[in-house]
Amino acid sequence: MKKAIILLGCPESPSQTPLALYASNKLTGMGYQVTVASTPSAKKLLDVSDPEEHYVKNKTDIESCLDGLEEGDYDLLIGFVAKDAAVSYFVTFYHILNTKSLALVFHRDQEKLDDFENSVRESTQATIASARAYHNPTPLRVRLDRTLDKLIGSGPKQDKPDMDEQGDS
Amino acid sequence: MKKAIILLGCPESPSQTPLALYASNKLTGMGYQVTVASTPSAKKLLDVSDPEEHYVKNKTDIESCLDGLEEGDYDLLIGFVAKDAAVSYFVTFYHILNTKSLALVFHRDQEKLDDFENSVRESTQATIASARAYHNPTPLRVRLDRTLDKLIGSGPKQDKPDMDEQGDS
Repeated sequence: MKKAIILLGCPESPSQTPLALYASNKLTGMGYQVTVASTPSAKKLLDVSDPEEHYVKNKTDIESCLDGLEEGDYDLLIGFVAKDAAVSYFVTFYHILNTKSLALVFHRDQEKLDDFENSVRESTQATIASARAYHNPTPLRVRLDRTLDKLIGSGPKQDKPDMDEQGDS
Repeated sequence: MKKAIILLGCPESPSQTPLALYASNKLTGMGYQVTVASTPSAKKLLDVSDPEEHYVKNKTDIESCLDGLEEGDYDLLIGFVAKDAAVSYFVTFYHILNTKSLALVFHRDQEKLDDFENSVRESTQATIASARAYHNPTPLRVRLDRTLDKLIGSGPKQDKPDMDEQGDS
């Protein structure tokens, strides 16, 4: 089974935790075993959001994960990038894993958004999906859907139409 | 089956959507049929967080819900109160439903927290659980657990220990 890792930094935006649950569910549907590596504050929000662990089954601390990380551990890297620290995490994981990678860059402020996007672009060759997002998760959710479909195609378990894409396409 | 309604205003805090999913799951486990009445922006975050509808099965627009609301429609009212508009919604639903009610008051700023708490106290006799909360959902989650257990007691489906309470008690 292919393995994906999702990186979550400290949650500034109300959209981050919802989008992390969504991405984890989508990747699971595409046949990935998903791990979410997060800071302690991001983990608390995941735990409260998903008390029965329907969407995120594997959680790990982002620093401990980094300590033991080696190339080949994961087939796909997805990073939520909404702070400077999150850029650093993404770039570090990217260069260790050396695999298919997607940075989800988001912020309420356009200037910050451009900064983060440029930082990721200068330091990696990762695919970037970016959108202004704070309260409204839809712009980033739509870009995530489109980019994932291009990056890894429809997985083996996508027999039924994806209701979440119908609403926006 | 007893019916509960959860009110969600516009999401300022990263904790609101996670706590709404948590509360809905907890009430369902206590034997309630749960409806979440929310503003459109709060609904988008719920939809993205819970794409398979494991936690929230019934969603409605808060304004439309209010239009047709009558005493007896719900047995329990829970309102997330983190803005002036949310105070108004809670007070309005409270007086129409005239049933067991809990206001979850939260804000990152202590002064605002006191304001909202006083407004709810002046206009209703609802139970209040309040906590400073922004990134960290735990203080409000703990108060929600304790208050719900006092307000409605353990439901018929609570056979196993509640793992979410063990962590904090």
